Amino acid sequence: MTDKFIFGRPLDTEAVILGGLEPADAALLEKFFHMSEKEIEGGEGLLFTCKMEREDIVYGLGENVRGINKRGWIYESKCSDDPFHREDTRSLYGAHNFLIVAGGRKSFGVFVDHPGKIVFDVGYTKLEELVISIPDKNVCLYIIEAGSPEEIVKEFRELVGSSYIPPKWAFGYGQSRWSYMTEDEVREVAARHRENGIPLDSIYLDIDYMERYKDFTVNEERFPDLQGLVEEMKAQGIHLVPIIDAGVKIEEGYEVYEEGVEKGYFCRTQDGRNFVAGVWPGRVHFPDMLKEDARRWFGGKYKFLLDKGIDGFWNDMNEPAIFYSEERLQEVFEEIEEYKNKNLDIQSFFAFKDIVAGLNNNENDYTRFYHEYHGEKIRHDRVHNLYGFNMTKAAGEAFEELCPDKRILMYSRSSYIGMHRYGGIWMGDNLSWWSHLLLNIRMLPSLNMCGFLYTGADIGGFGADTTEDLMLRWLEFGIFTPLMRNHSAMGTRRQEIYRFENTEAFRNIIGLRYGFLPYIYSEFMKASLSDGMYCKPLSFVYPQDEQAKRVEDQLMIGESVMIAPVYEQNADGRYVYLPESMKMVRFRSLRDREEIVLEKGHHYIDVALEEVVLFIRRNHILPVAEEGGQCVEEVDFKNLTLLSFADEETQYIYYDDDGYGKDYKNTGNYTVLKVSPEK
Amino acid sequence: MTDKFIFGRPLDTEAVILGGLEPADAALLEKFFHMSEKEIEGGEGLLFTCKMEREDIVYGLGENVRGINKRGWIYESKCSDDPFHREDTRSLYGAHNFLIVAGGRKSFGVFVDHPGKIVFDVGYTKLEELVISIPDKNVCLYIIEAGSPEEIVKEFRELVGSSYIPPKWAFGYGQSRWSYMTEDEVREVAARHRENGIPLDSIYLDIDYMERYKDFTVNEERFPDLQGLVEEMKAQGIHLVPIIDAGVKIEEGYEVYEEGVEKGYFCRTQDGRNFVAGVWPGRVHFPDMLKEDARRWFGGKYKFLLDKGIDGFWNDMNEPAIFYSEERLQEVFEEIEEYKNKNLDIQSFFAFKDIVAGLNNNENDYTRFYHEYHGEKIRHDRVHNLYGFNMTKAAGEAFEELCPDKRILMYSRSSYIGMHRYGGIWMGDNLSWWSHLLLNIRMLPSLNMCGFLYTGADIGGFGADTTEDLMLRWLEFGIFTPLMRNHSAMGTRRQEIYRFENTEAFRNIIGLRYGFLPYIYSEFMKASLSDGMYCKPLSFVYPQDEQAKRVEDQLMIGESVMIAPVYEQNADGRYVYLPESMKMVRFRSLRDREEIVLEKGHHYIDVALEEVVLFIRRNHILPVAEEGGQCVEEVDFKNLTLLSFADEETQYIYYDDDGYGKDYKNTGNYTVLKVSPEK
Repeated sequence: MTDKFIFGRPLDTEAVILGGLEPADAALLEKFFHMSEKEIEGGEGLLFTCKMEREDIVYGLGENVRGINKRGWIYESKCSDDPFHREDTRSLYGAHNFLIVAGGRKSFGVFVDHPGKIVFDVGYTKLEELVISIPDKNVCLYIIEAGSPEEIVKEFRELVGSSYIPPKWAFGYGQSRWSYMTEDEVREVAARHRENGIPLDSIYLDIDYMERYKDFTVNEERFPDLQGLVEEMKAQGIHLVPIIDAGVKIEEGYEVYEEGVEKGYFCRTQDGRNFVAGVWPGRVHFPDMLKEDARRWFGGKYKFLLDKGIDGFWNDMNEPAIFYSEERLQEVFEEIEEYKNKNLDIQSFFAFKDIVAGLNNNENDYTRFYHEYHGEKIRHDRVHNLYGFNMTKAAGEAFEELCPDKRILMYSRSSYIGMHRYGGIWMGDNLSWWSHLLLNIRMLPSLNMCGFLYTGADIGGFGADTTEDLMLRWLEFGIFTPLMRNHSAMGTRRQEIYRFENTEAFRNIIGLRYGFLPYIYSEFMKASLSDGMYCKPLSFVYPQDEQAKRVEDQLMIGESVMIAPVYEQNADGRYVYLPESMKMVRFRSLRDREEIVLEKGHHYIDVALEEVVLFIRRNHILPVAEEGGQCVEEVDFKNLTLLSFADEETQYIYYDDDGYGKDYKNTGNYTVLKVSPEK
Repeated sequence: MTDKFIFGRPLDTEAVILGGLEPADAALLEKFFHMSEKEIEGGEGLLFTCKMEREDIVYGLGENVRGINKRGWIYESKCSDDPFHREDTRSLYGAHNFLIVAGGRKSFGVFVDHPGKIVFDVGYTKLEELVISIPDKNVCLYIIEAGSPEEIVKEFRELVGSSYIPPKWAFGYGQSRWSYMTEDEVREVAARHRENGIPLDSIYLDIDYMERYKDFTVNEERFPDLQGLVEEMKAQGIHLVPIIDAGVKIEEGYEVYEEGVEKGYFCRTQDGRNFVAGVWPGRVHFPDMLKEDARRWFGGKYKFLLDKGIDGFWNDMNEPAIFYSEERLQEVFEEIEEYKNKNLDIQSFFAFKDIVAGLNNNENDYTRFYHEYHGEKIRHDRVHNLYGFNMTKAAGEAFEELCPDKRILMYSRSSYIGMHRYGGIWMGDNLSWWSHLLLNIRMLPSLNMCGFLYTGADIGGFGADTTEDLMLRWLEFGIFTPLMRNHSAMGTRRQEIYRFENTEAFRNIIGLRYGFLPYIYSEFMKASLSDGMYCKPLSFVYPQDEQAKRVEDQLMIGESVMIAPVYEQNADGRYVYLPESMKMVRFRSLRDREEIVLEKGHHYIDVALEEVVLFIRRNHILPVAEEGGQCVEEVDFKNLTLLSFADEETQYIYYDDDGYGKDYKNTGNYTVLKVSPEK
């Protein structure tokens, strides 16, 4: 049951699409939260307080640091370009204001549908108190009660609509780097994968394919024939996926800039000038993605690349990230003057450093510009968390118009719930840290809860230097994430996998992904089409199992599989908890595998650096392609080996389709696969 | 067996005190390393390459990030003031160039006795290659072969001399903060501990007790009667421990400055001026700690505080940390000019930011000043890693002269092997991260190997905001570290434990420390007096146990106890591996405890947030004080409860002494405690 509570006159974020919900009596809320009005950040705001039992678990909050159980930290919904993802980071790129309090006396979900900043104090200030504070009195809040966390999620997802579905090729392995600088560099990446027999479906173009970082341009010196390159790569089964940034470069003669200015499509300052921020290209304007005609205009621009045969994009810097505002930059130069010829001691030295360090993503800069939203002029900070959502909506709506029958790959860095209908997300600019592999594992089910099914992290880590063993272990997990991309930053150690020594292990592990694709795709599609989860915490599947509730490093992938990735350096194995008897399958490659049945309970299992281990649930089937191939096109989705653990007649409902079109409801997409009980 | 290899004309670091070792034939080295001469960092250098077997474990390197097994990363010995301790950090505050390659074909230890930068590539570039590269051709290297890692450590420690021994009260709990600003604030900290029945032995004075950060001064406005305060606190069993910084403020009329200038005790630039750096007080000179008379002079200054009744110090910022050099700061202001009125794009914007961000601890600044070392003028970077060592040696030698019969608490941030004879170290400016609790656990045995027995991390974390559960879990481990101090930075959440809700749990946990003190002190002293380790990896004690070699999150504390701390948020338990049958004791307080014998093998154990669990080895004894008390003085070291797991007549050699003097060799300090077999 879902109850809607309205305070003041909240903005419509367009996150919720289910109509017909009447506002409930605010008094009903007291069952879950004590609501009070309070001064928050110097203005009027609302405070929702909930006493937690010690055994309660708090699930959700999508893209955030820490565990599957979010207890013990304070999170802020405020889309942020933060490349560090430290344990004490409060905001990442998305604002996913949905959580479930599960356990003790009651279980319920809460969705705070509010586009400005929200603070979730989940037992940080007081271990046993959940406090949601919002520096605004206009808020819409939904409470969902159902029999289990899984049912709460399902009800929530019906509220916010079905998840985005990418083309099938987007489930293949992708190779990215900031940046492949030339056509020849792209060709080399393709060739090195193909000659090493490493499957690959996409190569990413980061910001340097553009002419001086101008959206919807191509640097013709380094990419003289992008369209030709796209075709050449497609002939090898490889899709090129260019990046699109939020800011539009200010440059006379640049069409997108001039048109935007002429039509009034950019965000404005208080006094009506186009707001100037610095990002990749230097000074830019931000398209007002919240304004319908500007959004339609920006979306239409993707045609420039679609026409070159491009069929996938990633939207970046759309929190939006701001290196500096023109005003702040001037202030900084003036402030610096004051520090010259001083004796800089501890206070003044760090004050000086902070002036410059605080230029990026300065909170104050987000109060310097305005949107036109539903006809109303609104200061950016009030709707901050909707910017990335609407940039991706711009693209999604345009694709629907420009190529209605074709799926286009689209994922975004910034997001808000609702955006999951238009695209996936990647987990942002992580680091080559083992702890970020674990974070990746833990974030996956949280994002799934919020509707972001098509997601994954930068495998191997974006910033910092990776190592060969981290790459191997991360891939051994990454083969289970719908988005599977290796991406790394300029200046870091190269991490295309052909650069490491153990090519065979890499080939086998990525080969496993392609072998598992029939199952991964089937499970992803069923989850998306039924508002379910592709990846779940163990406790969602075994809600009565107290030990399963504690597990923070194993996941259920689809209906048949549990995984327990190794995420510690130099570990040759790990502990695994089995909530029921399962069949463990150890793969050194698709064909080189061993099976053993393990009993319910605790186990220590060996997992060599080159091995992938998974667990098949009792009376479940894992269909595996007999031929993996070098790209998704080559995978045989029809001839399947059924790995299973069956002590009774067992069946699996297998979903498959052509992977490009949108005929999702065709019953012909479903097949029933059966196995007989083993001896 | 220890072999010494000499290349070129190495500087004498004074790390090694064992005389009579003749240089071995360089050809003998080939058994362990392939040595080659190579251009490193633009100059001549040496490269030592060793092929590792997959099963080899690399122990050592003291204060560094990552695991007990150091494989899979690249470390640089270059004492650095780095407050982040990220997974990809290459240098922390110490330079501990001792490691053991253990396993496969051979086990050996190597100590690179070299005071400049060294890079240890431990399977980072190639998984199975250890490469030590040194941008210098004058190097002294020791290879130690013995039957086991533990024996290699013992032989190494005999080479470098016995570890520093602090007074017994320094094994009590200490409370620190940057900073307690006034006498009354100190009084409040004391009172709040005492009124809550939380034991406490020391309160730390961070930089603000000084007059504008001037070493060997007291701010008389805020601390009008430090000597009186010291006495007042001592009457409560509490010692005040002030900080001492490396840099001496440049200020006319400030005696230490004027004397240093007059006598020529400061580090000089190439052209003979006193080198100017910016640190806490703004512009400072660095005493030339490497120059004997300057060192003696600086050490003598501690008398100023000893005379006020102070009997403990911590030496800080002695890498030395440099906020800026005067030269660089001027350059920075000039370089900033060039960025004004430019369109700052991705390249120029980050270049601009990096100019300012790169001011601190700028590598180039360490080439701007010189030492006089053994009569020779040497550029700082060549002996960089000796600075903290010699600052602490300055103090240690002074204490020996000023109060030869009394132990003075001394620990340092920066260090080099050899310094362990003069003081302990704390593990530097960590963060309130769960992963730093784990890092703390893993660093302890690595530091012990290198002779740093008196050590511990800032419990609860120095930077970032802590949480109550992190404090509890960290203390549950921290009660086993010789140095047990709660310390946190300005601007972070207050973490004196009386500020949290569950006072009883904190009281009980810290109470356990005091109850365990007879054992902790006895084990520490025996380790120190026998060149042994207080804390060991499991594999050192169970060298034949292949599973024990994999364990990275359990430790042996002394001869009788194994611990398995909980270091994950929201965990109610954890997996534990027992290399033999042990008795698990679960403590809710010293008196409220349960015992159960667990068999060799893997276990999952519950550990509630308020509990401490430890494991007593078979036929071993854990002597526990019957009365814990509010400070070490009150602990009853004589009336002991013998917890044990004995299936035969079992004995424990118990060390105790008065805790202040240095009569370590008195055989009366040893008692044999015995228990009969249990039924």
